[in-house]
Formats: sequence, structure tokens, C-alpha cells
Amino acid sequence: MNTPGRISTAQVKSYLLDLQDRICRALEAEDGAAIFQEDHWSREDLEDSGSGTVLGGGGRTRVFTGGAVFEQAGVNFSHVTGASLPPSATAVRPELSGRSFEALGVSLVVHPENPHVPTSHANVRFLLAEKDGEEPVWWFGGGYDLTPYYPVTEDIIGWHQAARTACRPFGEDVYPRYKEWCDRYFYLKHRNEARGVGGLFFDDLNDWGFERSFEFMRAVGDSYLDAYRPIIRRRKDQPWTERQRQFQLYRRGRYVEFNLVWDRGTLFGLQSGGRTESILMSLPPLVSWKYNWQPEPGSEEAALYACLTPRDWLAGH
Amino acid sequence: MNTPGRISTAQVKSYLLDLQDRICRALEAEDGAAIFQEDHWSREDLEDSGSGTVLGGGGRTRVFTGGAVFEQAGVNFSHVTGASLPPSATAVRPELSGRSFEALGVSLVVHPENPHVPTSHANVRFLLAEKDGEEPVWWFGGGYDLTPYYPVTEDIIGWHQAARTACRPFGEDVYPRYKEWCDRYFYLKHRNEARGVGGLFFDDLNDWGFERSFEFMRAVGDSYLDAYRPIIRRRKDQPWTERQRQFQLYRRGRYVEFNLVWDRGTLFGLQSGGRTESILMSLPPLVSWKYNWQPEPGSEEAALYACLTPRDWLAGH
Repeated sequence: MNTPGRISTAQVKSYLLDLQDRICRALEAEDGAAIFQEDHWSREDLEDSGSGTVLGGGGRTRVFTGGAVFEQAGVNFSHVTGASLPPSATAVRPELSGRSFEALGVSLVVHPENPHVPTSHANVRFLLAEKDGEEPVWWFGGGYDLTPYYPVTEDIIGWHQAARTACRPFGEDVYPRYKEWCDRYFYLKHRNEARGVGGLFFDDLNDWGFERSFEFMRAVGDSYLDAYRPIIRRRKDQPWTERQRQFQLYRRGRYVEFNLVWDRGTLFGLQSGGRTESILMSLPPLVSWKYNWQPEPGSEEAALYACLTPRDWLAGH
Repeated sequence: MNTPGRISTAQVKSYLLDLQDRICRALEAEDGAAIFQEDHWSREDLEDSGSGTVLGGGGRTRVFTGGAVFEQAGVNFSHVTGASLPPSATAVRPELSGRSFEALGVSLVVHPENPHVPTSHANVRFLLAEKDGEEPVWWFGGGYDLTPYYPVTEDIIGWHQAARTACRPFGEDVYPRYKEWCDRYFYLKHRNEARGVGGLFFDDLNDWGFERSFEFMRAVGDSYLDAYRPIIRRRKDQPWTERQRQFQLYRRGRYVEFNLVWDRGTLFGLQSGGRTESILMSLPPLVSWKYNWQPEPGSEEAALYACLTPRDWLAGH
């Protein structure tokens, strides 16, 4: 029996495994050709990197490449435990330094082949940090964000409407707060550029109590498909040119830069001795960098850059 | 007049500009088709990223792509000044935190198209950290390392012999010390894998005094071409297959992972508000990631992995 406020890792785990299943089935259905390959891994299978803090646990990684729609899709479930939280987790909460931890999450990144279909990312997670003789500290986090190459306003508005709909039962202020956090988080400081057109990001959520915080995490997890699927369907059969493909490969470089330089989730995984191949399945299958490349003013490529300054996409909607 | 021990930034700058010239001419000659494009930039031209600590200075960036031999080659000179050293520079020397700085260097990365020609990197740099009422602190750093795809023992031995020859006038212990530092530095902890087959790496060099330390930096800078040119000449006309090309693109992913996750030079540049396009010209023009890919045991690709555990390449030579 689950008393209100009593934390239940098993309940979170059960939800996350089911979410992974549902998202994988939906992506396979949208793709129409690809089937996820599954790898079960456990901490014991990993070579010790010497710097890892993960002690136990493992994960269920699902990836496919070369689909009809998705060039690569990866949906990870992981559940790891460690003797002490890594620096990426305690940088803003030094009081938790040295606590043991348990971390559960689903994290996914979808890289479509067609440059008209945006890349999307979603993550929901639960952390429990414990110390002998003290109350356990726990929190939920998560969110999703969209990275278009040839942005369509209708798509972006629909994406944000799904996010707002998911947040609304928790208060009118929730969507704007977590939308803004997303804009701040998925930002390439060295480029003065957002990673994409945003969505939701939340972390350290516990002030609603366990039940309600967990409910919110589920609302975010469940709404990812509501947000993304309509965009896939509208764009996946749209023809593209080699020029558009080259632009997509170029812009994917920004995705790599964000994930490897700025993303705390990636750094947490690499620093805590997580499974590198599962963490880096977020990186695109093919990427290009071009020194000092700039889109021609007025081109359809330049249109993307205008969307990479955070704005209120739902103003008037 | 330059008294022994008296630091002379002008002298260092003059050497570095000449070194950049010489290396660019040599790479153009080896390529036979490409000509470097040059961009002069100054700090005033850069948008303020908000997190930058660079106040002044600028650089001379030279890059070409699509050469006959080199898919991309970038040779940067930069000279920047800042109000306080960025965190990447003071992590191991917290006593320098808050000092103003002046940093000069040449940094280069060469990505050949032919998978038989290794990627190479070199850097030489000088830092001066000042504080009112205290003695200036200065040091030299630099080195070079080689990243083959289809390693040839003869090439690797020649590379390390050139490094040892450059170090020998400074003591028999210098090559082994800086060779080992290079192995430690160019290491992907999250992969338990060296970036390549190493070379030299040194930093914080000042205990020989200014003149001798500067002389050593010049010996390292000048020997880069001695180390790399013979390898280019032996390998550049060797035919390659599509399979080899794909392996090269895959292995380039490791180069990106190292530079963006672990390289203090890259982080120093991005954190100090340097010119992003000049810093990231180190990234390869085309890169692939493949989830959980492993070379077939006994294949020519597997042979590379055997070289990625640091070893003494000159044992018996």
C-alpha cells in the first residue's frame, strides 16, 4: 500500500518500463519498417573506468538505425545505484555531496532521416539520495524538447500546446515556468543559440510531495507522443533535397556540441560510470562540421536561426 | 634587449606567427591543391556570450577544406587577454584564480581524407597570469599527438623518434616524461581508450627559466613537421576502400568526444569567450556514430584498438 508522500521506487520503475514499451511501439508504428534491438546490461558487465561512481544496477537499451523514417532512434531505460553522487549532480546542491544514490529514468532521442521531421528528445527521471541517519532526499526531473531543421510554425505551436495541456492540471504557472527552464537549459552558450524550439524541462521536483510529483512526471512522459506524433505524420512523406540533407547534417553538429559540452544528463552518465554506448546513442548517426558556415540571408536555412532565440510560441494560441 | 629570464611576449608572438606560416606552407605543399583561407578576427568582433572572460586580442585563423590530401586542415594563431583566468585554467592551480591573463598560441588539427593518413594535432602556447603587486606567473605548454585509423608501426615509431629527437637536448628524461603525460592527457576515460598513439604533451613549464623553456617550446613546434611529413608522404597515395572510409568516419567520433568532453584547451577557449569557429575547426568535417559498434576480431579495424593502450613505441629503437 502506498501512503501519500511515501516514496516507492518500484512504482516509478514499473511506470518507466511501461513508458519505454509504449514509446518504442509507437515509434516502430510510425516508422513502419524498423524494429528496436534490445540490450540488457548490468553494471557488472561494464569495465571499471576508474572514475565511475556507479556500483550497481543496469538498464534496457533499445536502439534501431536505418528505419524508413528514423535514421536512428534510441530509447533507454536505466536504473543505477552508486556510493556517491557525481559532481554533475551536486554542483548546484553541494549539501548532497557524498550521498549514495539511486537513479531511474527513461531517456530517448529520435533522429529522423528526413530533414523536414525535427529531432526530438525526452527524458523522465527519479533520483533518491540517501545518507545514514538522515532523511532520504528525492526528486523527479524530466522534459522534452524539439530540434527542427526546417521549422514549421504549426508544428512548433502543436508541440508546445501538448506540453501546456500536460502541465495545466498542475497549475497555470507550470507550463510557462518549465518552458522557460527548457529554454535556459537547452542553450549553447558558446554559440548564443538555443538547441531548438524548446518544450519542457524540470528538475529537483519534490515540493508537491511524492504522489503529485510522480503524477506530474507521468503527465510529461505520457504527453511526449501526443506532442511528437502529429509532427512525424505531417512531415515524414515530404520530399527533401540534397541541400536540405546537408543542412541537417550540419545542424546535427550543434546537437553533438550541446550534448557533449553542456548536457548535465550526459555528463552525469559519463561521470558516474554509466554505459557509454547507451548514453551516447543520443548522438546522431552522421554529422558534419563546416568552418564558419553561415546560411545565406533570406534562405530557408536562415529561417531556422530566427527560431533559435527563445520566444513564447503560444502567445495568442 | 632580452635579459636571460626576462619574459618577452613579443618574441613568443613573432615565433608563433612564423611557425603558423611555415606549417601552412608545408601542408599546402603536401596537399598540392588546397590553399588556406585566412580570417583575422578580434575580440571586438565577437558577440559577448555573457560567460566569456576574454577582454581583448584576436587571432589569425587559417582553414581549408576539400584538399587533394586533407579533407580539412586548420591552423590557428591566437593572442587573447582577459580579466580573470577561466575555471579550466585554474582547476589544478586554484592560487591563480582571479588573475588577469594573456594567452598566445598556435593550435592545429589536420583531418586527411585518406584513412591511411593519420589525423594529427599540434599546439604550442604561452600563458602569462598577472596580479597587481605580485610577480607575474608564466608558463609554456604544448605538444602533438597522432591519431591513426589503420596504424603502421613504422609511422608510429618515426613519429615518436622525431619527438624524442626534439626533446633530447633538454635531457634524456624529457621525452619519456612528456610522452607519458601525452598518453594520460589524450585519453577518453569514458571509453578506457587512448585517442591515438600519443606523442608529447607538456604544460606549466617554467622551471627552466624563460629562455630555455621558450627554446623547448620552439623545439616542439619546429619538430611537428619532421614528425608528420614523412607519414603523409608514405600514405597519401595509398588506395582505400569504402569500408575503410566508413571506419575513419566512425573513429572520428572519438575525436569529437575527446575534444568536447575532455580537452582542457577546447574548454578554455569556449569558457573564456574565444572565437567558437576557430576553436571548433578541430572537429572533423564528417563524422558518424554507430551504437555499440565493435570491430570483427582479427580484422584490420581491430588492429587499431590494440594500439590504443599506451605503450613504449621506442622500446629497442
